[in-house]
Amino acid sequence: MPGSRLASELKPPRRLLLGPGPSNLHPRVIKALTMPLVGHLDPYFLEVMDETTELLRETFRTSNKVTFPISGTGSAGMEAALCNLIEDGDEVLVGVNGLFGERMVDIIQRYGGKCIRVEEEWGIPLSIERIEESLRESNAKLLCLVHVETSSGVVNPVKEVGDLAKKYNVLFLVDAVSSLGGCVLDVDGFGIDVCYSGTQKCLNSPPGLSPITFSEKAMEVIRERKSKVKSWYFDVSMIEKYWSGGSKSRFYHHTAPVNLIYALRESLRILLEQGLENSWKRHREVSETLIEGIEAMGLEMLVEAQRFRAPTLNAVKTPEGVDEAEVRRRLLSIHGIEVGGGLGRLAGKVWRVGLMGLNASQTNVTLLLKALEQELIRQGFNTEPREGAPKPSKG
Amino acid sequence: MPGSRLASELKPPRRLLLGPGPSNLHPRVIKALTMPLVGHLDPYFLEVMDETTELLRETFRTSNKVTFPISGTGSAGMEAALCNLIEDGDEVLVGVNGLFGERMVDIIQRYGGKCIRVEEEWGIPLSIERIEESLRESNAKLLCLVHVETSSGVVNPVKEVGDLAKKYNVLFLVDAVSSLGGCVLDVDGFGIDVCYSGTQKCLNSPPGLSPITFSEKAMEVIRERKSKVKSWYFDVSMIEKYWSGGSKSRFYHHTAPVNLIYALRESLRILLEQGLENSWKRHREVSETLIEGIEAMGLEMLVEAQRFRAPTLNAVKTPEGVDEAEVRRRLLSIHGIEVGGGLGRLAGKVWRVGLMGLNASQTNVTLLLKALEQELIRQGFNTEPREGAPKPSKG
Repeated sequence: MPGSRLASELKPPRRLLLGPGPSNLHPRVIKALTMPLVGHLDPYFLEVMDETTELLRETFRTSNKVTFPISGTGSAGMEAALCNLIEDGDEVLVGVNGLFGERMVDIIQRYGGKCIRVEEEWGIPLSIERIEESLRESNAKLLCLVHVETSSGVVNPVKEVGDLAKKYNVLFLVDAVSSLGGCVLDVDGFGIDVCYSGTQKCLNSPPGLSPITFSEKAMEVIRERKSKVKSWYFDVSMIEKYWSGGSKSRFYHHTAPVNLIYALRESLRILLEQGLENSWKRHREVSETLIEGIEAMGLEMLVEAQRFRAPTLNAVKTPEGVDEAEVRRRLLSIHGIEVGGGLGRLAGKVWRVGLMGLNASQTNVTLLLKALEQELIRQGFNTEPREGAPKPSKG
Repeated sequence: MPGSRLASELKPPRRLLLGPGPSNLHPRVIKALTMPLVGHLDPYFLEVMDETTELLRETFRTSNKVTFPISGTGSAGMEAALCNLIEDGDEVLVGVNGLFGERMVDIIQRYGGKCIRVEEEWGIPLSIERIEESLRESNAKLLCLVHVETSSGVVNPVKEVGDLAKKYNVLFLVDAVSSLGGCVLDVDGFGIDVCYSGTQKCLNSPPGLSPITFSEKAMEVIRERKSKVKSWYFDVSMIEKYWSGGSKSRFYHHTAPVNLIYALRESLRILLEQGLENSWKRHREVSETLIEGIEAMGLEMLVEAQRFRAPTLNAVKTPEGVDEAEVRRRLLSIHGIEVGGGLGRLAGKVWRVGLMGLNASQTNVTLLLKALEQELIRQGFNTEPREGAPKPSKG
């Protein structure tokens, strides 16, 4: 070994993870993660798979047979969703108002699709009218939307766009990475054909899996493809034979990440014990408390309209004269709280506060507001309680 | 919830995992897995990444800058290795003597490559002469080989083929999923340009990551691609900016599976504390004890020549008249020992015994031989010690 540094024991600091994810693990999830490992074809594990699938269906609110976790992070779910549906030359309509919409465009083009972009500024929800206009003018096979844009904290109007997808008879694909479990989502009710999420956000499970679900309509399109899916690892027709094959006819594809699936199963149990509606309500209430406190300090939220603010991911504008990175650095090192910085065109301009799963608590909001106030004062920003509407965010 | 079944607590049985992987986790790895979670851009985690990279370089025996774990299982590593190097129409030479060689062919074709197959029967090592012949006749850009074929337990002659790759100036790609840590492997010494493995084999870490390394020569080819890599998730030029960017210039690609990386880091520390040579030697010795016991019972190994038998994955022929699946089922349910069955054309014909990492111990061999003997006798097979060479394997 080149030095003793490499041989040092792992000693991570304890953090309150209020960034864009990962969120802190639930204690029961930690326990599940270290349960005795069994093989990926063990009869016990096959039961665990069936149960996980059933729990996922309930969480997504779907009866889709093809529902399982992809063995990769949320971005792997995005690629799996897109690469199975797209063939060379397919027209795809994509809502783009943040980094993850842009990522969809990149992936679609790599897999040979032609993108039709419907755009908004980051932080502004996509316009239903403009999406309908594009649908009317295009031959799109697929319509893609990010539910909660993790880069800006905006909620896109998934339900309304779902109605349009039905009206124009296109497949509807939704990124629910930062919404599943924390925001109102009803895959079957909203007419969503493909939906994926991540485990490290509102599920309080480790990063590394991406729950996904495909409607029968989507699966028919996939079964009728002219060409093989370019990715082998994400080919849902093959993975399905392992996940949905039934205990006796499962067909090995790749070694399932057994421990992560234990953890996911536990996190879904926790969520469903609480009840989805209760969880959505708690996320909304806790976020409202945060926003109240933020605005009382004279800060502003990036997303203007209350109803388009994601309760799970709250983007706060950094006021002029305040060093965004320095505040974030000190929140972490002095207060032990992680919040996210801005990505892409929002770099240096916002803090992104994740309140996800068990982290969505009034206590955490109080802790963060106190620490943030302290750091703002330290930088000479006046946080005295404002009356009435929040003042322009100048220090 | 539809029923209380779904709400049941996770209670996996304890298994001794002597199949093709996953192997049992090392207790220190379990501890690492549940260490406090930090964000994937946390300064502490960036250090963990640098250390993991350094430990991986030492384990692969390489000085390659681009060395990190892919966020997916071993098969994800295979796809990542191939999809970055292949462009439409590229000729690729592939050694095929088992399921994982076949999988390479499938992936190469999906990514537009033209495969030139050099084949052998499953269980027979690839012929160096025939590979050279094919190299002489082709315009291959890339030569691919599985080091240890998990489907048959054969070791392919990586070192010798590496010499050929150098001689004919082609890139050399090696699958080390079932060999890294357990079999002699020297990435730089053998002239390997791309090498990947899995964490759930000889590293005794959970499944879900695939350590990978790219030589500078491979990276140059990737940097000079005419087309974008079709996969976004596996695009090494982008992932590299997150892993190799240095603490100050890391660029977010996807959320790293933090807990799995904690676990991997610990498993590499354990391996390197023992020493690679010591680990290779132990795997060899333990496997030899197993083979002795197997042959003493009148059973035969699938791979004939001793030096082409993988110490990590031992394929034992099921003797005529013995119910392969029933023996395996009872080993699991009565004795708590998992062994693998045959895949593809070897289904029903072999047991695959993995002796990987901490599972490669004389005690485990004794436990397995005892249990196997008991089950063979139960099926009326004569396991009386043979003298001299093993007799034909009839019951």
